[in-house]
Amino acid sequence: MVQSELVRPDERVDSLERGGLRIIQSPRAFSFSLDAVLLAHYASVANYDTVMDLCTGSAVIPLLLSTRAKGLKQVGLELNAEAAERAERSVLLNNLTGSIEIIAGDVRKVKAVLRGRRFSLVTVNPPYLPLGQGVASSCDAHRMARHEVDVTLSEVVSAAAYLLATGGRLAMVHRAFRLTDILVVLREHRLEPKRLRFVHHKVNTEARLVLIESVKDAKADLKVAPPLYVHQENGALSLELQELYAGGELR
Amino acid sequence: MVQSELVRPDERVDSLERGGLRIIQSPRAFSFSLDAVLLAHYASVANYDTVMDLCTGSAVIPLLLSTRAKGLKQVGLELNAEAAERAERSVLLNNLTGSIEIIAGDVRKVKAVLRGRRFSLVTVNPPYLPLGQGVASSCDAHRMARHEVDVTLSEVVSAAAYLLATGGRLAMVHRAFRLTDILVVLREHRLEPKRLRFVHHKVNTEARLVLIESVKDAKADLKVAPPLYVHQENGALSLELQELYAGGELR
Repeated sequence: MVQSELVRPDERVDSLERGGLRIIQSPRAFSFSLDAVLLAHYASVANYDTVMDLCTGSAVIPLLLSTRAKGLKQVGLELNAEAAERAERSVLLNNLTGSIEIIAGDVRKVKAVLRGRRFSLVTVNPPYLPLGQGVASSCDAHRMARHEVDVTLSEVVSAAAYLLATGGRLAMVHRAFRLTDILVVLREHRLEPKRLRFVHHKVNTEARLVLIESVKDAKADLKVAPPLYVHQENGALSLELQELYAGGELR
Repeated sequence: MVQSELVRPDERVDSLERGGLRIIQSPRAFSFSLDAVLLAHYASVANYDTVMDLCTGSAVIPLLLSTRAKGLKQVGLELNAEAAERAERSVLLNNLTGSIEIIAGDVRKVKAVLRGRRFSLVTVNPPYLPLGQGVASSCDAHRMARHEVDVTLSEVVSAAAYLLATGGRLAMVHRAFRLTDILVVLREHRLEPKRLRFVHHKVNTEARLVLIESVKDAKADLKVAPPLYVHQENGALSLELQELYAGGELR
């Protein structure tokens, strides 16, 4: 599709720096972050996977996943109708309508919205802070993406558990300080954590994020990978992230 | 006490490389490992703490803790009567009978063995592998220290929860692959994980151990520290461990 027909005057188009992908974003709404990019490169995606991205926002995760494996059938679920409509136009802009479907719907109602549909991989970069913590943004779209206003960690994981069959994977990125909540909730939903990797701003700082992949009904045996550093000591992007942007993958 | 009166012909005396401390060990039984040394330097011990070390073995943790704070009153609990008696002689050998008490008893029976006694800090380097995993040693003393033959993770944490009042700390070292089990069991017993640090053999290897400190009835907010590396790339001890053995502390 021609860009001019798909992008509105108040929006901008950013490059995803992979496979020529472009993404439509609204300066007024929540922009995709490094977190989503890291998750899209951490999830163990295989050819012909059926993928569900919960809380998909601008669809950055399905767009990036489409460069990592072939024959994917992906769905992005987004509560915010305006964001979902914008995501749909990004899919069109990249000629990926045959493999990425955007659904405007509530993650708490997946049983109704997606009755009977099952996926081999679910990804989610959920809203981060538990209500009452952190500074709420005055902008509603920001508020929704940053806080558990509309959906809690438990509701997100419950939806993922419903959408996955035995052996299906859930890949998630979250704040490191919520690790106990995350592991407890995953275990409760029989989504056994199998791979985990902490993301540090740089060497000798506390972990800021955690990347985690669970397998439904798997036995307990967690591999904790070497940490991922975002920056070098001198402030430049770490070699691993430079490599990722150059087409490499995270472990 | 004179060493010759306290050490049996089939035992040996090792230096703990701190404060002139010595420890009696039997070559036939389980020797203390790096894990215990790391835990003794990770626990946040304060002057005048009352400390319980569960599964104390050779009492290496109480001995090392005695160099880190003043006015400590410590108890080491050990199921194996032979190990407990040997630990008691190590305490004597270091003239620490006034501050370290060794009790031969079952961690599963703390309510009976230690009725009414409460501690400000509990430390534990528990048996590691769940039953059925790993290669069982032919030696019983080895088997007990390495496997959950006599006590499970859940029983150890339950004992710690009983022995701590609100605000009391539990410092534990365990295998990283059990992280989910550990966090789930700690949360179940209202021992909220507050500090966590992974131990890697060296850079770019998976985590082998996890050091974790919980606070009873605290609010959820976990700090994940930068990783600890045991060795440098060239195989030498890491600078942080060299510093620890020279009198420094772990974070």
